[in-house]
Amino acid sequence: MSYNKLNVFHWHIVDDQSFPFQSTTFPNLSRTGAFTPDHVYTPADVSDVIEHARLRGIRVIPEIDTPGHTYSWRKAMPELITVCWANGKPNQAIYGTQGEMEIFNPIEPRVYSTMDSLLREVKSRFPSNFIHLGMDEVYDKCWLSNPDIKQWMIDNNINSSVGLHTFYADRILNITRNIDVTPIVWQDVWDEKVELPPGTIIQVWKDSSDNSAFGSWAAYLNQAANEGYNVILSSPWYINYISYGKYNTNTSVMNLEFFKYYEVEPLRGFTGSDEAKKRILGGEACLWAEFVDGTNLLARLWPKASAVAERLWSAASVNNSEDAQFRLDVHRCRLLRRGIPAQPILNGYCGNYEVVITSSDIEFLAVRLPLKGQPSPPNAVWPHPQQMTASNDVLYIRPHDLKIDSNIRSCDIIAKAIQRYEPIFFPPKLA
Amino acid sequence: MSYNKLNVFHWHIVDDQSFPFQSTTFPNLSRTGAFTPDHVYTPADVSDVIEHARLRGIRVIPEIDTPGHTYSWRKAMPELITVCWANGKPNQAIYGTQGEMEIFNPIEPRVYSTMDSLLREVKSRFPSNFIHLGMDEVYDKCWLSNPDIKQWMIDNNINSSVGLHTFYADRILNITRNIDVTPIVWQDVWDEKVELPPGTIIQVWKDSSDNSAFGSWAAYLNQAANEGYNVILSSPWYINYISYGKYNTNTSVMNLEFFKYYEVEPLRGFTGSDEAKKRILGGEACLWAEFVDGTNLLARLWPKASAVAERLWSAASVNNSEDAQFRLDVHRCRLLRRGIPAQPILNGYCGNYEVVITSSDIEFLAVRLPLKGQPSPPNAVWPHPQQMTASNDVLYIRPHDLKIDSNIRSCDIIAKAIQRYEPIFFPPKLA
Repeated sequence: MSYNKLNVFHWHIVDDQSFPFQSTTFPNLSRTGAFTPDHVYTPADVSDVIEHARLRGIRVIPEIDTPGHTYSWRKAMPELITVCWANGKPNQAIYGTQGEMEIFNPIEPRVYSTMDSLLREVKSRFPSNFIHLGMDEVYDKCWLSNPDIKQWMIDNNINSSVGLHTFYADRILNITRNIDVTPIVWQDVWDEKVELPPGTIIQVWKDSSDNSAFGSWAAYLNQAANEGYNVILSSPWYINYISYGKYNTNTSVMNLEFFKYYEVEPLRGFTGSDEAKKRILGGEACLWAEFVDGTNLLARLWPKASAVAERLWSAASVNNSEDAQFRLDVHRCRLLRRGIPAQPILNGYCGNYEVVITSSDIEFLAVRLPLKGQPSPPNAVWPHPQQMTASNDVLYIRPHDLKIDSNIRSCDIIAKAIQRYEPIFFPPKLA
Repeated sequence: MSYNKLNVFHWHIVDDQSFPFQSTTFPNLSRTGAFTPDHVYTPADVSDVIEHARLRGIRVIPEIDTPGHTYSWRKAMPELITVCWANGKPNQAIYGTQGEMEIFNPIEPRVYSTMDSLLREVKSRFPSNFIHLGMDEVYDKCWLSNPDIKQWMIDNNINSSVGLHTFYADRILNITRNIDVTPIVWQDVWDEKVELPPGTIIQVWKDSSDNSAFGSWAAYLNQAANEGYNVILSSPWYINYISYGKYNTNTSVMNLEFFKYYEVEPLRGFTGSDEAKKRILGGEACLWAEFVDGTNLLARLWPKASAVAERLWSAASVNNSEDAQFRLDVHRCRLLRRGIPAQPILNGYCGNYEVVITSSDIEFLAVRLPLKGQPSPPNAVWPHPQQMTASNDVLYIRPHDLKIDSNIRSCDIIAKAIQRYEPIFFPPKLA
């Protein structure tokens, strides 16, 4: 992440399938909720991750996702979970949508005392002072199916599930206020028209490429920022939604995934005030792990997340995908040299290293013509990245070019360039 | 491959981008055509691959792809390549479709003398006695643009490009006949209505999921086998065409890629005679390397190719995807234990090992009830593979289940089972 200037690690540390986070307050949660006793994050593991990240300028934000996605809590704390009913019977699931017990019971007081204790522990163990509270995909059909909840709604004059969402969110957000933590939520709770405290950060994730039935993410950004909320955008950057293909232009054949992540301009459709614009805090590349583990994590993430990073750190005017693909290819090779198995985005190969000379390095610009002749014309065929210059301003030299090309006229110039760029060949290793 | 009973390695060893195959007869081909002098397969590399494969019961079939896809030959042997013309000028490319020099010149006699020598060398170095000749994606527009070829066609009474395809194929197939090698070709040359010698093997690859405009692969199989050709099917198994998603049934949520590879029944639409059916030799999972290299090869290939292998080695009646996904998940864990980073196809985890007990192991069937109770009902929610039986006939035990489940009544039975299945826990290592 630090090699790509990504500076926040959003750690979705619990979910339906497993509760791997070892809480010191509630050790039964991971003991009964993790896949196995070996598949846990111990307090020492968590500290190690936080310190490793801190040394690289990365903030770690944990997500304790409630009230939905709590199926893994049910063995340790069945009393917190809503029992779903159907056809007059309890413990009924809707296959493929929700489990028979996967959503907190908002009318159960122990939910709030447990969350108060757990969030206090999380705050004490994660120094970032942000906690992601989840609040996504809460299937209120289960709430409304439960006779106790229905009776409680009548007793408390609550007419719809919005009232339940509000009741739950108010209490949890009250906890984060009490412990002085900035809350982050997925957009769902805001979609439900729950009013959130000012300063709450809303993470916009809908209208991803997976489901065109959602509205536009640009509209969500507009609305949330104009309502005074802080916003993080992740909709266009679901790295786990893999797809195959090339994107053809008149002059280039680009990797489709690179292209679609890079071409996003978060503020293209933004119509709010400058003040509202400042409330758009940034973007996030998400990698959900349905089909990802240690076997394919790094290759799947990099360099696709590098494309997102360049987009998020660049002015809107830096938007030439054809240039960027070569820059990203060079960066991918840089990641490889540093031991990250980033997958290819172009045909071709990485040398053992390469030198990048920008036009500001005027003393070496002379290298260019003897080495390369003219840059490839825009309609060049089969532009192997290692055989052409990426733009008029940047020249890539790879060692094999030097060996192969018979047009080199001055080895002195090359030697000087290599000396000058030694730190690029042999980047300092991080501890 | 041997762990999956895949017994032929089709090695596409040259292409437009690079000529990495080091020929002893024509060393200039790889010297000028490989990405770099390091990116080659030396004679020793090739021998190692063949011997490594032989020890595992795998035949290695090399592909020397001509007359198209020969862009990488042009530096060493420009005289063999057709110069494409456009607007009265030579060396004109069609961007994204073909290079300005990427197709052999069929009227050039040195093409055939070179191929004769090269194929003799290939035969001597690959003992399989099959050579894949390619013959795919030959852009005859370039042939027809070339003034010399046009004049030659007039002189030789050849009216269309079919005549050129035939002229080329006849001469190359004559070489394989002379050196007693069985030729394999991609279906394209047969699509061009070129008549091929009986016994030629046609590889059907069109109508893949990438392009629905092609006709049905089942129709190709029918026609080619009925015309007397031997056939290999690869259309439905392009492993490089990655896609994201789940496939939902009423009782299961399956990995989409697994599902689409597994559900193929090669002979579902076959209408030919039994004799014709025997000419369908098998299937092939293809992994093209546009966006694949050492960083992601193994995770991308496995266990998707395992799903293809089970399909190809199974009777048509073995077609229950819901069962198969758990079998493949177990197999994926087996691959992991053997050091192959096969990617996940289901949520969940692998234990350090697992025991599989089939119903034929009647002495241990008693293990089942005390361990598991009844099998999960068909409408069970969130069926974690490690928490349910895959079918009525097979029981999976993973070590953590044994530790966690408080219903175990007899450790003796478990201990015996583990002793019995020790070879599964600790499979013998291959050299």
